[in-house]
Amino acid sequence: MTIRLATQPYKGARDFYPADMRLRQYWSTQSQKVVEAFGYEPYDGPVLERSEIFEAKTSEEIVSEQTYRFTDRGGRDVVIRPEMTPTFARMVAAKSGELIYPLRWYAFPNLLRYERPQKGRLREHWQLNCDLVAPKIIPEYELEMFRLIIALMQTFGAKPTDYVIRYNHRGLSDALFKNAYRLNKGQRKEVFYLLDRADKTEPDVLKKMAKDISFSVFEKIHDHLKSSQNPGEIFQDVQSETSFEDFNTLSQIVSEQPCIKFDPSIVRGFEYYTGLVFEVVDTHPDNRRAILGGGRYDNLISNFSKQSLQGIGFGWGDVTFRDFLNIHGLVPDEITKPTKTVSLLASRDVLPFVLQVQNQLQEAGISCRLLLSESDKMFKSGLKNALKHLAKYMIIIGPDEAGSQKLVLKTIQTREDKILSVTDCIKVLQTG
Amino acid sequence: MTIRLATQPYKGARDFYPADMRLRQYWSTQSQKVVEAFGYEPYDGPVLERSEIFEAKTSEEIVSEQTYRFTDRGGRDVVIRPEMTPTFARMVAAKSGELIYPLRWYAFPNLLRYERPQKGRLREHWQLNCDLVAPKIIPEYELEMFRLIIALMQTFGAKPTDYVIRYNHRGLSDALFKNAYRLNKGQRKEVFYLLDRADKTEPDVLKKMAKDISFSVFEKIHDHLKSSQNPGEIFQDVQSETSFEDFNTLSQIVSEQPCIKFDPSIVRGFEYYTGLVFEVVDTHPDNRRAILGGGRYDNLISNFSKQSLQGIGFGWGDVTFRDFLNIHGLVPDEITKPTKTVSLLASRDVLPFVLQVQNQLQEAGISCRLLLSESDKMFKSGLKNALKHLAKYMIIIGPDEAGSQKLVLKTIQTREDKILSVTDCIKVLQTG
Repeated sequence: MTIRLATQPYKGARDFYPADMRLRQYWSTQSQKVVEAFGYEPYDGPVLERSEIFEAKTSEEIVSEQTYRFTDRGGRDVVIRPEMTPTFARMVAAKSGELIYPLRWYAFPNLLRYERPQKGRLREHWQLNCDLVAPKIIPEYELEMFRLIIALMQTFGAKPTDYVIRYNHRGLSDALFKNAYRLNKGQRKEVFYLLDRADKTEPDVLKKMAKDISFSVFEKIHDHLKSSQNPGEIFQDVQSETSFEDFNTLSQIVSEQPCIKFDPSIVRGFEYYTGLVFEVVDTHPDNRRAILGGGRYDNLISNFSKQSLQGIGFGWGDVTFRDFLNIHGLVPDEITKPTKTVSLLASRDVLPFVLQVQNQLQEAGISCRLLLSESDKMFKSGLKNALKHLAKYMIIIGPDEAGSQKLVLKTIQTREDKILSVTDCIKVLQTG
Repeated sequence: MTIRLATQPYKGARDFYPADMRLRQYWSTQSQKVVEAFGYEPYDGPVLERSEIFEAKTSEEIVSEQTYRFTDRGGRDVVIRPEMTPTFARMVAAKSGELIYPLRWYAFPNLLRYERPQKGRLREHWQLNCDLVAPKIIPEYELEMFRLIIALMQTFGAKPTDYVIRYNHRGLSDALFKNAYRLNKGQRKEVFYLLDRADKTEPDVLKKMAKDISFSVFEKIHDHLKSSQNPGEIFQDVQSETSFEDFNTLSQIVSEQPCIKFDPSIVRGFEYYTGLVFEVVDTHPDNRRAILGGGRYDNLISNFSKQSLQGIGFGWGDVTFRDFLNIHGLVPDEITKPTKTVSLLASRDVLPFVLQVQNQLQEAGISCRLLLSESDKMFKSGLKNALKHLAKYMIIIGPDEAGSQKLVLKTIQTREDKILSVTDCIKVLQTG
């Protein structure tokens, strides 16, 4: 008895069949165009990193519970990257003296987290990462993150009402919890933790997560934050020693933009965020979740380098991208269907002519897949095959056609056949 | 004292800085165009797989010594993919009933092997994989692999004399070892193992690898194979029960091609290869190594599926790609340099006009990076910055320009300034 192996992928990971892969390519190709128009340059790092680079700064939950961490054959403690920013910071630090600022880079890494697979969250996903680094990041460069996001959403056909960019300053929230609520450092950290989970966790589960502060205090804070519509209201309550001047400037610049909203309940999960944090929330009633998130990190690069460099960036996952496009009906038909490839059904006996035709078509920019048949009965299956591939046309070459250096161009829908020279066939295909 | 983390990447893995990443993008973008012209469709699989899918069929050396294998937090035995074909076979098997044949797919996975890092071999690399699957693969479809390779090499500027496609049939070699040399199964497996390493291993190291056969017998076989110039000579010695009719057909079709050569010493390392095997060898005296390899696998998919499907494919790594292009001087200058991006140096005080200019440039297809300055002394560093970015032009907008809705277009090389309207500036940039 033959024992067959299971065909499903590893739990929480995905197989990308061509239709899925074309959608991912659409995402990466179009995104690349948008970010390169702003001067962003491509980079990539290794899928494995030494564990230490994630230990201090990513998030306790991710590192201790969600990383794929193991010891390699040489005894090194390694992690499959759960996110890209620490790798980015390491790479910038390694050449910090010779790089040019503001530095603008983007990447499309695959990332792994050991999470319970759920909607919009899988163990493996791909992520567009855009980051800007400079000795001093001014509010106008923070604004660029929002402008990038808006340009990306526009490229994929999203209307300004389909999403909201929500932003906050972690220092402002921290000052509020400290000065207005008199919370100590541990309690403030817990409030950040709870806030980051509040929208995606059932209230009774969230309640159990509260340990250092009473859940009723957390609820009071949460209500306070949710009812604050502009930074001014929070400033009033904060009476902080910090002035938040830059954040004020940014808030004023974006105040007229309907799709950008201040929301002091946004804190994001990464512990390395030091200032501005933001996320894009889908406004569709059936997909009210963050699809993209980012923030400002001013101390991350100094883990690796003496040079003082500030950073800001965001990550957009391919799973939330796909869910967003699906729910708003924004997946273009032609993306998931290979309509432009022509099937060339031909007899094996006339191979040299067939290959010549394929070459000519390819040189004219026409994709062309070969279906070689040994007999006429192959023809029917060839036609069925072309239909499944959703080709508009099919080319047929048998001994007669090869003899006269012609071919039959069949329009699949009408079953109409035309006998043409290769040149004429190319003309039809290029205009049809 | 601050303890700083090391900035180098994990051993044997690479950081892709923008110039390296652009080269990798050039490789993948151009390759994609070539293979799509033959009707190949994109796919991808997970970077983690259950270990069992590699256990039987990949290669003993790779699985037992070179995989990144560990137990996940749920107790599953997993492997970071060392190669793509088993994933491909699993995916095809999972939908074998609904897929259309011949199936043609391509992918660009990142793969990891725990090897001693050396030239052309690193622990992590990216690989173009092209595969064709059908119920019965005819020699003309095997030929398509060679045509794909030639088209790929052509796209990157390689001359036909820069490389040779060497091919063989594993069954033919096996029959020769069995019938002419009277080797048993274990000995034949060892000869395959030694042959695969002969070109890249020092003779005395190779000698130590011989266990089931004497090294002098191996050397005799090796000399025999190296001196055989066409399949006919081997057939004579084999007197096999198998006819190798299809292989004969393929050999005849390719016999006129100067860059395709029969070489019975080519066996390739993967144990799942059942018939045709091939590799591309760089002919440059300083880089005489296989840069791409592939073969026919007729039993791999049946590990997962009842349906009988034959497969053929190859993998081309980004490291050997880069080495090949470098040694033949084929890296295009413009690939590694972001020449087309314009730097826009502007004063923060006139932000609305600056953003409007950037939008207009982007809409006209011109990439444009912002350099915002708070004072005039920023100008010098901005110009230096633009020079480092190798921009041909720089745009400067200060309060005067914003007031008159104009801008200064500086030609970096000549330092010549022109005061232009945005529309006129776009015209210059589009034609310059």
